[in-house]
Amino acid sequence: MKQLIKNIYLLTMDDSDTTYKNGYLLIEDQQIAALGPLGTLPAHLFGADEIVDGHGGLLLPGFVNTHTHIGMIPFRSLGDDVPDRLRRFLFPLEQHMTKSLVAASSRYAIGELLLSGVTSFCDMYYFEDVVAQCCQEMGVRALVGETIIDQPTCDSPKPSGGLDYCEKFLTQWSNRSELVMPILAPHAPNTNNQETLTKILALSERFEAPITMHVSEMSYEIEAFRQNHQQTPIEWLHELGYFQRDFIMAHCIFATSADIELIAQAAKNVRIAHCIGANTKSAKGVAPIKEMLAHQITVGLGTDGPSSGNTLDLFSQMKLFANFQKTYNHDRALFPAKEIVRLATRGGAETLGLAEKVGSLEVGKQADLVLVETDSVNMFPIFDPYSALVYSANAGNVTAVWVNGRLLVKEKQLVDFSLADLRANLYEEMAGFVQAAKNS
Amino acid sequence: MKQLIKNIYLLTMDDSDTTYKNGYLLIEDQQIAALGPLGTLPAHLFGADEIVDGHGGLLLPGFVNTHTHIGMIPFRSLGDDVPDRLRRFLFPLEQHMTKSLVAASSRYAIGELLLSGVTSFCDMYYFEDVVAQCCQEMGVRALVGETIIDQPTCDSPKPSGGLDYCEKFLTQWSNRSELVMPILAPHAPNTNNQETLTKILALSERFEAPITMHVSEMSYEIEAFRQNHQQTPIEWLHELGYFQRDFIMAHCIFATSADIELIAQAAKNVRIAHCIGANTKSAKGVAPIKEMLAHQITVGLGTDGPSSGNTLDLFSQMKLFANFQKTYNHDRALFPAKEIVRLATRGGAETLGLAEKVGSLEVGKQADLVLVETDSVNMFPIFDPYSALVYSANAGNVTAVWVNGRLLVKEKQLVDFSLADLRANLYEEMAGFVQAAKNS
Repeated sequence: MKQLIKNIYLLTMDDSDTTYKNGYLLIEDQQIAALGPLGTLPAHLFGADEIVDGHGGLLLPGFVNTHTHIGMIPFRSLGDDVPDRLRRFLFPLEQHMTKSLVAASSRYAIGELLLSGVTSFCDMYYFEDVVAQCCQEMGVRALVGETIIDQPTCDSPKPSGGLDYCEKFLTQWSNRSELVMPILAPHAPNTNNQETLTKILALSERFEAPITMHVSEMSYEIEAFRQNHQQTPIEWLHELGYFQRDFIMAHCIFATSADIELIAQAAKNVRIAHCIGANTKSAKGVAPIKEMLAHQITVGLGTDGPSSGNTLDLFSQMKLFANFQKTYNHDRALFPAKEIVRLATRGGAETLGLAEKVGSLEVGKQADLVLVETDSVNMFPIFDPYSALVYSANAGNVTAVWVNGRLLVKEKQLVDFSLADLRANLYEEMAGFVQAAKNS
Repeated sequence: MKQLIKNIYLLTMDDSDTTYKNGYLLIEDQQIAALGPLGTLPAHLFGADEIVDGHGGLLLPGFVNTHTHIGMIPFRSLGDDVPDRLRRFLFPLEQHMTKSLVAASSRYAIGELLLSGVTSFCDMYYFEDVVAQCCQEMGVRALVGETIIDQPTCDSPKPSGGLDYCEKFLTQWSNRSELVMPILAPHAPNTNNQETLTKILALSERFEAPITMHVSEMSYEIEAFRQNHQQTPIEWLHELGYFQRDFIMAHCIFATSADIELIAQAAKNVRIAHCIGANTKSAKGVAPIKEMLAHQITVGLGTDGPSSGNTLDLFSQMKLFANFQKTYNHDRALFPAKEIVRLATRGGAETLGLAEKVGSLEVGKQADLVLVETDSVNMFPIFDPYSALVYSANAGNVTAVWVNGRLLVKEKQLVDFSLADLRANLYEEMAGFVQAAKNS
């Protein structure tokens, strides 16, 4: 099966940031088979099985959302401006999450991710076997992490029950899918004890599974580690052995210079999922990404859950990233738009350990692509396509999305699913949750 | 002519923030004639001339963009991340703006404003008689200000030529239109000499015309006033008599506590157009809006020009406002979403001196309305409609827009104009500008 996409402005995000203003890209089965200026299209490819006219839109690698909780759609727009929302709102209400509600939320969220051009993501929540199943069914690429936390949760009555869950989950899903990789997701260093965190390391080694964790996100977390260990959470996790594993740390808002040195020394083992929208909506702060990148640390962008940043798209994050990082560093020239698009695509792929497969448009890579139309009113003129993506575009400009060569979004609609059905199903499943929210 | 809008979630933004979850609103000619819960709709209104089904969307007062340069669409995505862009890029390239290019840009920009739900705005640029004409033709509400600056400009070869232009412009347009009000727009306190600024005051008095100006936006502006006057620009303008006029100050990023006291003392004469997106994209800083509002100063939101913030919609600004103001003030609870929607609607109307006519949905007010659909994937669930507007929505969610009772946007399309034609016309007019940009 050959799909030819033409009449596109190709942004490859390869090592030389090659672009083709009037380009083509050919997908053969699951991979990128050829690409270049339209004039160089070999004659024998004229007869592709499927020809997609990009109408002059921007074709780039699919966005990679490095930190999500896709089971949490039911929480969106609930108690947004409440201090200590996690402990006052989210933890108590999470007791009302059920397997079928997480499934309905995940399907809806995957639809939302795809419609905004996200082709890969890294998730952390409960009932993750069902999340993995939804990803597989809907054809999206994901790292899927079951949460481990030292309190009873909706999918495990005893504290740290996520450990047992993870063992089963990793057994079931390791090496099973081309798209879905099971991982371990300890909630945070301050919400797990040392014993549990050590067991997680062992599981990670045994299954060769990456770990993702919220780290240095909360001021009270930093304070607790200072008091109990005279260390930062990052120093403590490093000592515990986490930096020898494949480790994706979300947030790291309060990373110190010494923390950054430690992360840099761990070379590519330890990567950062930067969630500027969630971090600033909650007034927590702005992670020191400039310093991290100066230390060659790998960084990707993430939205956090749909209740933390209220969106799952990376357009909103790119804009917030630009404005916050420039303003915090008092430097307009810092992070020109191209670097930000790179963080949202290739940087994310590197963060999730997927860069050999995806993250740039190159022959032989898996075809994870997003087509962003330039017909809408906000997308003219385009002197610089990266600027247009970062400063002008929004998720509504995404027209088509491919994952692993399969067209999942076409003309701004999901190809294989009805959004109305996904919503109706979620709405139905939410009845008990809504009642609990009203009583809370 | 009676238009009945039903099946809507009404957010009136009146003094009590009244909402009706299943409401109706009746427009009679140009005004809001009735509104309330659907069950209270009087029987004799069943037969309106036009019935609009809102499909459960949010109906609220049209957004008010308090600071724009709608002639500047040609600059969008050009040199975005360049330091001192104003003097290195914008001023030199502005020499290539022509009357017909400003007209084409303005028409396009008005289309963009309307499609994003903006029903009123305050503009500052060149050839503003043609801008006024475009606003009038397209049926949007605007304060339209000709720029005065102490250098040659595209519409006047001699420095401060805007003064003569303004006199003619005010003569032609004062009290001429129900929608369009001509105003004076001195560029900034550091780009006009005292003599010119005094003449502007006299013109403002003679024509009873408001003034808008960039104030306390640039660090070099602050430094110049410190050196030359041992004052802040705001103190200096106050002394010059500007605070006795109807005065809209854009930006005020560097307003001091003493400045804020002065503004507060001027009661409602002096209002603030806060442009968080443009101010932070350029790394300038975050204006002290919390302190201003604590002093009962009137504040509205603005995008600045389409090259400064790259959008003209207030959804992007509401999101940036929330995240920046919360994070800068280290307070998640500060500015709950409802207050931000208020700033973007009623606050803007107050800032432009239009609050008696528009800015809230109340019987007898002019019907300036925006309908935001909740069918798109990003708009579910909605526990709090204000949260959905601030944190989840984007400009693409705007379905319908009325100005002065006239339906200008329907099903996400301009009713009276073809966007493709507006763009084609602008593209054609831009040829010379594009050449100049390439050579710059």
